[in-house]
Amino acid sequence: MASALSRPLLLLLVLVLLAAAGPCAGAGGRVDLWPMPASVSRGARTLLVARDLRLSTDGSRYADALGVLRDAFQRMLAVVELDHVINGTYYQGAPLLAGVRVAVTSPDDEVVLALALALLMLSLSCIVLNFGVDESYKLSVPATGNPLYAQIEAQTVYGALHALETFSQLCSFDFNARLIELHSAPWTIQDAPRFPYRGLLIDTSRHYLPVPVIKSVIDSMTFSKLNVLHWHIVDEQSFPLQIPSFPKLWNGAYSYSERYTVDDAIDIVQYAEKRGVNVLAEIDVPGHALSWGVGYPSLWPSATCKEPLDVSSDFTFQVINGILSDFSKIFKFKFVHLGGDEVNTSCWTTTPRIKSWLIQHGMNESDAYRYFVLKAQKIAISHGYDIINWEETFNNFGDKLDRRTVVHNWLGSGVAEKVVAAGLRCIVSNQDKWYLDHLDATWEGFYMNEPLSNIYNPAQQKLVLGGEVCMWGEHIDASDIQQTIWPRAAAAAERLWTPIEKLAKDTTSVTARLARFRCLLNQRGVAAAPLAGYGRSAPSDPGSCQRQ
Amino acid sequence: MASALSRPLLLLLVLVLLAAAGPCAGAGGRVDLWPMPASVSRGARTLLVARDLRLSTDGSRYADALGVLRDAFQRMLAVVELDHVINGTYYQGAPLLAGVRVAVTSPDDEVVLALALALLMLSLSCIVLNFGVDESYKLSVPATGNPLYAQIEAQTVYGALHALETFSQLCSFDFNARLIELHSAPWTIQDAPRFPYRGLLIDTSRHYLPVPVIKSVIDSMTFSKLNVLHWHIVDEQSFPLQIPSFPKLWNGAYSYSERYTVDDAIDIVQYAEKRGVNVLAEIDVPGHALSWGVGYPSLWPSATCKEPLDVSSDFTFQVINGILSDFSKIFKFKFVHLGGDEVNTSCWTTTPRIKSWLIQHGMNESDAYRYFVLKAQKIAISHGYDIINWEETFNNFGDKLDRRTVVHNWLGSGVAEKVVAAGLRCIVSNQDKWYLDHLDATWEGFYMNEPLSNIYNPAQQKLVLGGEVCMWGEHIDASDIQQTIWPRAAAAAERLWTPIEKLAKDTTSVTARLARFRCLLNQRGVAAAPLAGYGRSAPSDPGSCQRQ
Repeated sequence: MASALSRPLLLLLVLVLLAAAGPCAGAGGRVDLWPMPASVSRGARTLLVARDLRLSTDGSRYADALGVLRDAFQRMLAVVELDHVINGTYYQGAPLLAGVRVAVTSPDDEVVLALALALLMLSLSCIVLNFGVDESYKLSVPATGNPLYAQIEAQTVYGALHALETFSQLCSFDFNARLIELHSAPWTIQDAPRFPYRGLLIDTSRHYLPVPVIKSVIDSMTFSKLNVLHWHIVDEQSFPLQIPSFPKLWNGAYSYSERYTVDDAIDIVQYAEKRGVNVLAEIDVPGHALSWGVGYPSLWPSATCKEPLDVSSDFTFQVINGILSDFSKIFKFKFVHLGGDEVNTSCWTTTPRIKSWLIQHGMNESDAYRYFVLKAQKIAISHGYDIINWEETFNNFGDKLDRRTVVHNWLGSGVAEKVVAAGLRCIVSNQDKWYLDHLDATWEGFYMNEPLSNIYNPAQQKLVLGGEVCMWGEHIDASDIQQTIWPRAAAAAERLWTPIEKLAKDTTSVTARLARFRCLLNQRGVAAAPLAGYGRSAPSDPGSCQRQ
Repeated sequence: MASALSRPLLLLLVLVLLAAAGPCAGAGGRVDLWPMPASVSRGARTLLVARDLRLSTDGSRYADALGVLRDAFQRMLAVVELDHVINGTYYQGAPLLAGVRVAVTSPDDEVVLALALALLMLSLSCIVLNFGVDESYKLSVPATGNPLYAQIEAQTVYGALHALETFSQLCSFDFNARLIELHSAPWTIQDAPRFPYRGLLIDTSRHYLPVPVIKSVIDSMTFSKLNVLHWHIVDEQSFPLQIPSFPKLWNGAYSYSERYTVDDAIDIVQYAEKRGVNVLAEIDVPGHALSWGVGYPSLWPSATCKEPLDVSSDFTFQVINGILSDFSKIFKFKFVHLGGDEVNTSCWTTTPRIKSWLIQHGMNESDAYRYFVLKAQKIAISHGYDIINWEETFNNFGDKLDRRTVVHNWLGSGVAEKVVAAGLRCIVSNQDKWYLDHLDATWEGFYMNEPLSNIYNPAQQKLVLGGEVCMWGEHIDASDIQQTIWPRAAAAAERLWTPIEKLAKDTTSVTARLARFRCLLNQRGVAAAPLAGYGRSAPSDPGSCQRQ
């Protein structure tokens, strides 16, 4: 249709359309980014985004042999279109953004890549992403130039992935011109995360989560720059993961089809790594392990008293060693999670065989609990892992924990300060604020939960690696996980990413921006729930997504 | 690993694995198909499915120039894998299914195709799918033969698509061999739908549904062989669709971004048609149209009394004509839905201008309601549509309705028998059983709702085109639509597809099969809710998907 118009008329038409180009332009360059970057400056120019937007890596020292950057760019193009039909007519003289130039500057990347390729030969993982990788980036979108290119500079490709996500949130669909636009150019954004550990826990023991569901959760994490998927694989209810060293553990799965092969797990880890997300694997011992005994009943204290795992048996630790040995071939993250929470040791004293073993070794129940946790730690360390344990281990015998232990808070507030004062590292997940299965925990509470509260010593602050929101699975399966996670996890994600001085002191000042981000998640196919009401509330009335 | 083993050892290994190949084999060829086909026979042989399963169209008279079949085959391969890593080792001598041969037999298809291609030139639709198209198919999976091919015979490509869906439900992932298997061969399945109209309503006025969400709903419909997406586009709350003839109607959208362009709508229609799903567009007049007046206030009786549309104004019918003219370029289905329900005409008598018009034309309120509906019908017919109206039109002046009218039941039971007795066609959606927004309506109620109850005359039975489950959007958006639709819509889908004599008399006999189908939907990334409890209930306790 438009092509039938004369050029001057077309130009006039498009200029009129641009003038009425909707909320972004209308709001005079409102910054609609989530999480808010460390530093943002913007202008007032609207650019058209070329339909064949190009990726240039001139001047990058990152070879991208594994396609991490190339694939991320393609995903970015897809989410920017939001599945609208982009078929408008470009007009002569419009400021056209021709591409994005990505320069990954750190020479380390070549080493990383070489290492990754080496690993590719030697093992099953194919990308080196690990704890503490530099995630910073600089994104510039000039308003003039021919050809006009956005510029991304990052130390590592993972910083560049975050920059592409930020870039995608600058773009919007023009319903009149049927083109993608980028408002408020020129942009200069300097950004880096406040905490290196920004996690989300999923639980595949209480309910099995199909592989496509786990991948969609990983995709959704990247939109708010979360970088650790804590996979609580096993618990007392089911054991879904194949363990070649002890194949009967798999008998603890709920059913034949509610299982993951080793190759499925490797696929999930690689899928996450390509998106800048590490996978933290957990086995929760000695409690929360009843399902292990379905295949190996001797792991139970007795047929009538099945938890915790039998502390007196060498076989118990042979199995843990086998699992962690198999894990080391699948899960390349620096850390493994060994649980250690909610251990009721009464079965150890009510089972004669174990009771006599305790007496023989001069241990009471709490000695045995410590003995078990520390022995499991040694096994994990022997496989090259640093350990994360739930806070009960610290609360009971913090001074005995391996100094590499990261203590995972969950019971409540006030623990992190004790942990870092003791010189150990900490991850914050206080349940009253950051447990997603608590449906009465509001997004405002998620947003305002400060991991460094009452920690003023800079050296101690550094020991707080970050935080994690926890999506426990007792009442969660493929049918309700996304809307129980989002948008509340995004509120925590800004707390974990954005410099504290840029965080809202009062959540009312971010409500509209988070509501728009939630709408964006919906447009990207993520079933994020309305902000209003408690977790996972249905919309209370008809209305705009932006007001719910 | 396996490749390192000697061939005899490998053969032994795989035979052992096949012997323990899980529920399908274990259950001795349980028929795990939803909806249940008209006729099924099976054997006891397990086949391995080739990783490069081939599509053959030898002997087909369907040229597939538009890739409908080719794309459907690729989608089928993807869902069969359920995102598991398929990397097991095939062993010599295993019965290997090499491909699927699809023969589309009706010469009509060539005409259809030619017509489709003609349309491709002339308009924006590109596939001819329409009401009453033959959806029957025959699927045979032999247990012997070299090469071994499954055989699909269908009159039209749309029957072949259903056959591919059925085939996909015969396949399962072998967690031990890491291959796709097909149990209980040989299979012979003859199948055809009981009703030609098997619908699902979505409502994009009460809440906007992003395009990817609508497409995912369409994908999910194909898994239970529903074939009509009833798109309730507009209502009093918002007007999300672009109407070039009257562009200000789009001002009635909730926000700048909660809108669909004409090209988006065409894209949705074509996406659905490629999957064998027709899109039924609705404008609900004269009530449920308040949002029209945001852009054109003169459509309101007055600024203080805004519904129903002004019956006295020619402009009202010019706008309806413009909308239906634009619709005819987008929505190629035989039918358009004109609503006509819940009309409170009091604004017509309280508005002096309209009241005097009524007096002048000797009409009372109900005369004017009839006048409006019949005039809108004439306009739709002039654009080549058959009309569907909600049942109030029939209840008030059924004898005056155009004889091509299809009456859409919703208020309750007992209407269909009156409609067909009057010689009109009917679609059943009685709200007490088939309204998905009624969260207290259970899947058992959806399953047992019989469209032909109390209709015994075969000629009258033929006038019941089928039924539709309705997902009204007052409390539904992208965050909760899938789990509110599924699995209850699937229960209705079997009622509408399967021969009545094969339907369960007692739903307890299908609970386990529907639970497994719900798990399959989850594995395919559809957020179908547990069967237990009311619509959209969260799982009440930890457990297997198959028991919830």
